[in-house]
Amino acid sequence: MATPTATSRPTPEHIFNTFNAFQQSAALKAGIDLDVFTAIAEGANTTILLAAKTGAAERGVRILCDYLTIHGFLTKEAERYALTQESAVFLNRHSPACLASMADFLGNPWSKKNFEALAEAVRKGGTAGAVGDNTKPNEELWINFARSMAPLAIPAAEFIAGLTGAAKGKPCKVLDIAAGHGMYGVTVAKRNPYAQIVALDWPGVLEVAQENAKKFGVADRYTTRPGSAFEAEFGSGYDFVLLTNIFHHFDAANCEKLMRRVHAALKTGGKAVTVEFVPNEDRVTPPTSAAFSLLMLAGTDSGDAYTFSQYEKMFANAGFVKTTQCPVPDSPQQLLLSEK
Amino acid sequence: MATPTATSRPTPEHIFNTFNAFQQSAALKAGIDLDVFTAIAEGANTTILLAAKTGAAERGVRILCDYLTIHGFLTKEAERYALTQESAVFLNRHSPACLASMADFLGNPWSKKNFEALAEAVRKGGTAGAVGDNTKPNEELWINFARSMAPLAIPAAEFIAGLTGAAKGKPCKVLDIAAGHGMYGVTVAKRNPYAQIVALDWPGVLEVAQENAKKFGVADRYTTRPGSAFEAEFGSGYDFVLLTNIFHHFDAANCEKLMRRVHAALKTGGKAVTVEFVPNEDRVTPPTSAAFSLLMLAGTDSGDAYTFSQYEKMFANAGFVKTTQCPVPDSPQQLLLSEK
Repeated sequence: MATPTATSRPTPEHIFNTFNAFQQSAALKAGIDLDVFTAIAEGANTTILLAAKTGAAERGVRILCDYLTIHGFLTKEAERYALTQESAVFLNRHSPACLASMADFLGNPWSKKNFEALAEAVRKGGTAGAVGDNTKPNEELWINFARSMAPLAIPAAEFIAGLTGAAKGKPCKVLDIAAGHGMYGVTVAKRNPYAQIVALDWPGVLEVAQENAKKFGVADRYTTRPGSAFEAEFGSGYDFVLLTNIFHHFDAANCEKLMRRVHAALKTGGKAVTVEFVPNEDRVTPPTSAAFSLLMLAGTDSGDAYTFSQYEKMFANAGFVKTTQCPVPDSPQQLLLSEK
Repeated sequence: MATPTATSRPTPEHIFNTFNAFQQSAALKAGIDLDVFTAIAEGANTTILLAAKTGAAERGVRILCDYLTIHGFLTKEAERYALTQESAVFLNRHSPACLASMADFLGNPWSKKNFEALAEAVRKGGTAGAVGDNTKPNEELWINFARSMAPLAIPAAEFIAGLTGAAKGKPCKVLDIAAGHGMYGVTVAKRNPYAQIVALDWPGVLEVAQENAKKFGVADRYTTRPGSAFEAEFGSGYDFVLLTNIFHHFDAANCEKLMRRVHAALKTGGKAVTVEFVPNEDRVTPPTSAAFSLLMLAGTDSGDAYTFSQYEKMFANAGFVKTTQCPVPDSPQQLLLSEK
């Protein structure tokens, strides 16, 4: 929202707007809580109609929708609001790709509190919060994650299913580590009727994954192993081990330790599939992946968004000779493939 | 930070980044709290040097400075950070235009709490917080404002001083309503040795204004009137009445009421000088002024960022035949001039 000026002198507008950036998160959450995006999709496109539909005050709706327009989530013409293509797909509850539930996890009170103490985290070099060691259980947080973040995983889950050759329908044994909502493994099973999925996570989180396995009709090929990714028995002979958004929580030594266990669990020729925010070597591009490091500084003792060369080294130390990467379609994330 | 993709399909990246936008406010505040901008200005331009200078951990400094680079507050080349032109002017404490103190007011806990309850404010059509009527005293908040926000006022204050013909050095009587830090009136007095300033605000706030009057050597021509802008005795015969960032706190009826009192206090030919965030009639441009409405929804019962036509009407109802506007240089704000 930095606005260029006619002069070449700098203005404080970008600084002012960054001090106020927290308002953007609050406005998007309020828009979702009041479900204005769905209301507009259903034709309530003026402040009067929206106020009636959402049970909110006209002044409130007008100011909120103007703000959402300023930030690109709505358009406004002649006092009528409309959804952008992005809002129609991701914020309207009638859309199958709706991501509204993300609001419950991103910016949760726990995370907000960590960011209130960000200067202290910078001083320490790790979270100022009480719970920063993600090798330890933190069920409340991860159940929230599992309940909120499933929709965001779908594009990557479909991409992984394709990559595992799911369409060929050959028998295939898959271990989904830190399964969360379970959608990565569930999607493989959905696409390949001969796939067997083993999901590993904390017990309460696995209940959510099992609900999803049932919902998508794959519960009969879905088993679970409750416990820590660093301690639980994995089993062996896997064709694929899925490691989606797990490494960023740990330091390099723990990433290597985990990947060594993955190596042991794979059959020869089996593959470890990692999905991650992977910044370029400069660590400041591309923006979304590079910015992810700050969340790990604020919320963990020693997590990070690792570069590809860092992953290459960690995975090589764990026994994988070669790791390749490719972008996940429709996502800022990368997929890393390591063959045993 | 929305990243265009090669496909024409929408991606959820802008939504994801908006949920996380509160991190931007926290990172800028942490950068100021640790004074990394000043440290870089003094030559500490690597993570090792910055960690030593700020007493922070290398991991913390590296992740914070990378994040500040992503968001345009620093540059990074070959592992060395540098200030942008904007950071050098506004975030480095050696710069006379440094705005670092703004961090203490923008995003203060009171405002953050109001935004946590934004959906409720939209429902109500006014703040969900306990203190939303700005006609009532709220000294703690406004003393914080007066102590934090003076640097941001300087460009507008100098512009007003020019507009009052301060350079001509003619006798001139100025009433500064809701004076806050006092920098608007103080700057007029600084530029015009024959100007007499009367500052009005809550008693504790006026102490800050008086400190500034003393600091800039104009205390002998600076008097104060403690109390409410709606009730205190203004006096009369003013050449100028300054109304900087006050109207946005109130509804139209109170704005008119205040402006009627201003009309009565001015001498014939005297001018009311209003500085405000004034969105265009579409209420969604320009972004910074239009977005300001949301802060008023979150924090007040009935404040707003009014359009020029709304101000024209309110001021006409209060007795001013004509109001003109012009942009304040180096600022997103507008200056409105109404002659009696």
